[in-house]
Amino acid sequence: MIKAAVLGFGVVGSGVVDLIYQNAELIEKRVGEKIEIKYILDLRDFPESPYRNKLTKDFNVILNDPEIKIVCECMGGSHPAYEFSSSLLSAGKSVVTSNKETVAKFGDELLALARENGVFYLFEASVGGGMPVIRPLSKCLAANEVFEVCGILNGTTNYILTMMNKYSESFETSLASAQEKGYAERDPSDDINGIDTCRKICILADMVTGVYCSPESVAAQGIVGIRPEEVKAVEEWHGNIKLLGRCRREGDKYSVLVAPFVVAENRMIAGVDGVFNAVSFKCDAADEITVSGRGAGKMPTASAMVSDVMDAASGSAYRADWAKKNDGLYVSIDEVRDVFFLSFVKCSCDLLNNVKCEFSNVKVIGENENEIFVMSDEMTTREVKEHIASLEKLGIKSNGYMRVLQ
Amino acid sequence: MIKAAVLGFGVVGSGVVDLIYQNAELIEKRVGEKIEIKYILDLRDFPESPYRNKLTKDFNVILNDPEIKIVCECMGGSHPAYEFSSSLLSAGKSVVTSNKETVAKFGDELLALARENGVFYLFEASVGGGMPVIRPLSKCLAANEVFEVCGILNGTTNYILTMMNKYSESFETSLASAQEKGYAERDPSDDINGIDTCRKICILADMVTGVYCSPESVAAQGIVGIRPEEVKAVEEWHGNIKLLGRCRREGDKYSVLVAPFVVAENRMIAGVDGVFNAVSFKCDAADEITVSGRGAGKMPTASAMVSDVMDAASGSAYRADWAKKNDGLYVSIDEVRDVFFLSFVKCSCDLLNNVKCEFSNVKVIGENENEIFVMSDEMTTREVKEHIASLEKLGIKSNGYMRVLQ
Repeated sequence: MIKAAVLGFGVVGSGVVDLIYQNAELIEKRVGEKIEIKYILDLRDFPESPYRNKLTKDFNVILNDPEIKIVCECMGGSHPAYEFSSSLLSAGKSVVTSNKETVAKFGDELLALARENGVFYLFEASVGGGMPVIRPLSKCLAANEVFEVCGILNGTTNYILTMMNKYSESFETSLASAQEKGYAERDPSDDINGIDTCRKICILADMVTGVYCSPESVAAQGIVGIRPEEVKAVEEWHGNIKLLGRCRREGDKYSVLVAPFVVAENRMIAGVDGVFNAVSFKCDAADEITVSGRGAGKMPTASAMVSDVMDAASGSAYRADWAKKNDGLYVSIDEVRDVFFLSFVKCSCDLLNNVKCEFSNVKVIGENENEIFVMSDEMTTREVKEHIASLEKLGIKSNGYMRVLQ
Repeated sequence: MIKAAVLGFGVVGSGVVDLIYQNAELIEKRVGEKIEIKYILDLRDFPESPYRNKLTKDFNVILNDPEIKIVCECMGGSHPAYEFSSSLLSAGKSVVTSNKETVAKFGDELLALARENGVFYLFEASVGGGMPVIRPLSKCLAANEVFEVCGILNGTTNYILTMMNKYSESFETSLASAQEKGYAERDPSDDINGIDTCRKICILADMVTGVYCSPESVAAQGIVGIRPEEVKAVEEWHGNIKLLGRCRREGDKYSVLVAPFVVAENRMIAGVDGVFNAVSFKCDAADEITVSGRGAGKMPTASAMVSDVMDAASGSAYRADWAKKNDGLYVSIDEVRDVFFLSFVKCSCDLLNNVKCEFSNVKVIGENENEIFVMSDEMTTREVKEHIASLEKLGIKSNGYMRVLQ
């Protein structure tokens, strides 16, 4: 029997405990040993819980119990998750986490600590919830060089964008609906500002490049400010707007960014709606692989965590490895090349000719009474900004731009 | 250094050799040891190949070389692939295969042999080519009970159906185009009759149920006979026709079948076109997971095989396990419930009223000058056949039926 503990008895933590007991028989069959939860750490009392006799408020009980081999960290936030994880790994216990903030900030340190102590630090649940991402990347594509990882990594924003697209709702109404359904938190800023997606794409960038990518260094744009007029123009062009995290090889460097993208309808991820997540990997041998699934929620996240627990228990887990190096591996967003979707306010001047002249070439893809929508050729972000600035000098106002997924 | 051999220097075998040398550096970094191909078995001569000094025509050289730890079987066909694999596993060598015929027929025996000898028999490449399937099912969803596996598992037929759907081509023209592009073999019967899909869904059924599913016992229907009129009617209903393999839990038993399905456009796999494959898993904790990728081809298949080689080399591979048992776990297709898409030839009688009366309830979804297309309620295959037979007694001719993916 393998004894484990769970830190945090919230949505995810209680899901992990439920799943381990609900599927105890098949888990035992597949691992070859029974997995037993000995402790659940939480500061709250749960007098009605069937697991109340496992609850403890003292982290040291878990840390100092030599029987505990695996600990599921489901606390959220970096502190004390980071300190607890460090202590546990140093004490020779494997740690399984759903905590993207901690993995994105301290993954390099915690992975090194796990290696030094011959245990595992596993984080499948930290990206994409129940959707497999870490294993496909590390195991299924192990023989490949990966050129690009790109995906919908946040269910809240995908739900909002789906509402805006399918029901022509405003951003505000869609956000309110997401909050009502429990898909968005009362303070949704980490989601709608792209911070959550940023943490997740940083973890994937760490994995792809082997070099730590700091969330603070990544240009992360959210979905605040996306207008129904833009959604409509993109829809008429047969596309959808999706908030994507993307890590892409650029020569011998990499770019990492979070931004709303215009995605053509015929791309698989364009059809991934609601709270579902999806991620595409482009690589040298397998070409393109796409995975989709539920990016959050109690049982999907528990599914990912318990699969990691099972891998840790059987000793067959993957040891990720990335290092903090300051070698300029990541390029600035200004140098990143894309095709751009742009909108300009109609004015008394010869708008289209001026835009065409400045951008060398654009394709008009739609208009309404106040603005025109165009697609540029491929160019750098810097060039787009420069063109917009030049046009503003001519009195032509830009309503913003979005990248287009090629 | 880990020494390996490759059996068969055709498309897949040469891809494996190419990939192992092309990505040697990253493979060594990830495995922790260099992987070296010592032998390539083929009866042909390859005087121009850079690997000509590794070629041998004598299987016993590989079998009897104690240095060889891992063998990639890329031969196709069951014999001598089965005999070679048995000998190698018995000699304590791990075997990695892309050979779905051998896995589907003899997987239970070969897996038992691998277990007895403390080595691995790995077959990620046998289902879905470069698309990860076996690992997502066995590792990512390890904590789940899987209720349903359903997917596009054959690129040739998916290419043909895509041509018929997108370009309104006939079956014959689409097949000829697939042959011209090298997507279909000169004798395409295994693909177009559903036999290839059948082998793959049997392997997935073996994995899901833990009980051997004989390809001979599965009702497998191909795409021969699908008419442009049906494709058009389904398209107007906002769907696509896809050849699917499906294994689904039915109470405490399972059904396994291969058939063309009507798939509503809003399902992710409806948009998986051309030679791409896709598979969806429905399970208790993670809900629904979908994976897509290139189902065949030299380098995608090599990607899957080399990832298995790396798992075997690092000792972290998964040990699948299914047994031959005659316990009636698999139900007859007659008892399988689905919604059905049906077509009836227009006649002088009161067609629609008769059809509605016989089926209790149908929805008309289209018609042309010769036939009407309807959707039934959910019912068993047996009931559909009985209703059609009753209508034929009234002089109403059926043009066939297809299942609808719910």
